[in-house]
Amino acid sequence: MEGIEGTGKSTHTAYLAGWLAQQGQQVVTAREPGGTPLGERLRAILLDPGLGSMPPLAEALLMFAARSASIKEVILPALERGAWVVCDRFVESSYAYQAYGRGIPIEHVQTLDRQIVGARRPDLTVVLDAPPELGLSRKADSGNRDRFEQESLQFFERARSGYLQRARAGGARFRIVDASRPLEEVRRELARIASQLLEDASG
Amino acid sequence: MEGIEGTGKSTHTAYLAGWLAQQGQQVVTAREPGGTPLGERLRAILLDPGLGSMPPLAEALLMFAARSASIKEVILPALERGAWVVCDRFVESSYAYQAYGRGIPIEHVQTLDRQIVGARRPDLTVVLDAPPELGLSRKADSGNRDRFEQESLQFFERARSGYLQRARAGGARFRIVDASRPLEEVRRELARIASQLLEDASG
Repeated sequence: MEGIEGTGKSTHTAYLAGWLAQQGQQVVTAREPGGTPLGERLRAILLDPGLGSMPPLAEALLMFAARSASIKEVILPALERGAWVVCDRFVESSYAYQAYGRGIPIEHVQTLDRQIVGARRPDLTVVLDAPPELGLSRKADSGNRDRFEQESLQFFERARSGYLQRARAGGARFRIVDASRPLEEVRRELARIASQLLEDASG
Repeated sequence: MEGIEGTGKSTHTAYLAGWLAQQGQQVVTAREPGGTPLGERLRAILLDPGLGSMPPLAEALLMFAARSASIKEVILPALERGAWVVCDRFVESSYAYQAYGRGIPIEHVQTLDRQIVGARRPDLTVVLDAPPELGLSRKADSGNRDRFEQESLQFFERARSGYLQRARAGGARFRIVDASRPLEEVRRELARIASQLLEDASG
């Protein structure tokens, strides 16, 4: 589950995991950065508004370090026992935020992607899409915003554009879901997509 | 200043910085991981014995993230105003510890080195060399050892061998200094090496 701030990733990740469990599937959720002892320590650093001056490439390295722990400690063990893994953000966020948003060379993200994620890709990548204005208005007051939420609308426009470009170029595993609609509509579409995924997996 | 645990890097870094200042040089010291707000946060994670299971590649990414902040915030500004920078560890430690010690592919470290450090190399890299037994005996009791100090003698043998191989293959900027000798002897050799460096720089 990918998308910029305030598109409902956490809510929809929980919904999708619950929906899969209702179908009798084993499900594990993961979140990035975070979900492991190392990942949560890095999350605290990455979101800390006090560290505003972090070099963009350092930010990318920390994201991939957290991802590496999540893959090793959460995702691979779950896949090995036959569970579905629903991730609240994965590698597309590094392309959207650090390459398109921050402007680091996309080749650096591609290299890290190969080194850390490797050949195993998600079965399905949902990009929850909405205008940044909408997303940010759903978030905390400006005084409580984390290091990313404090970014400009232009930053989130670039990140959104990055998600959309990669989704359109990325083939059948990508689905762009209009997350500006009412919650129930988004959920119905997610359930349809997940239903198709289960059919494909059992077929 | 590079070398495995307990070879006196911090002491000798401070000595060398003081010696250069006595010669009327501007000097800045840096340490890795650390020396910046981000670097010190990462240092706390990297040395925490409670995070023993960190994936080796994640460890390498965190080291380079800290290095990136040190280069941007400490090293480059100092060089720009004409100061010498004496670093307590730099990129050779990533080769020695993460590639030779932990066994991650050396190509991964080389890629990160190119991305983060780039073409600018140290004028001088001193490898303080001593047997790991000696270094560890100078360190804290086993109960207080950090995540690296808790590593096996074999790990430090591999790291030491990595430093030596790279120093021998790396050309004139590398100096291997026998750090198992009495402190005063090591200092005299460092002063001789630094004196030559100043001559070369002014020549």
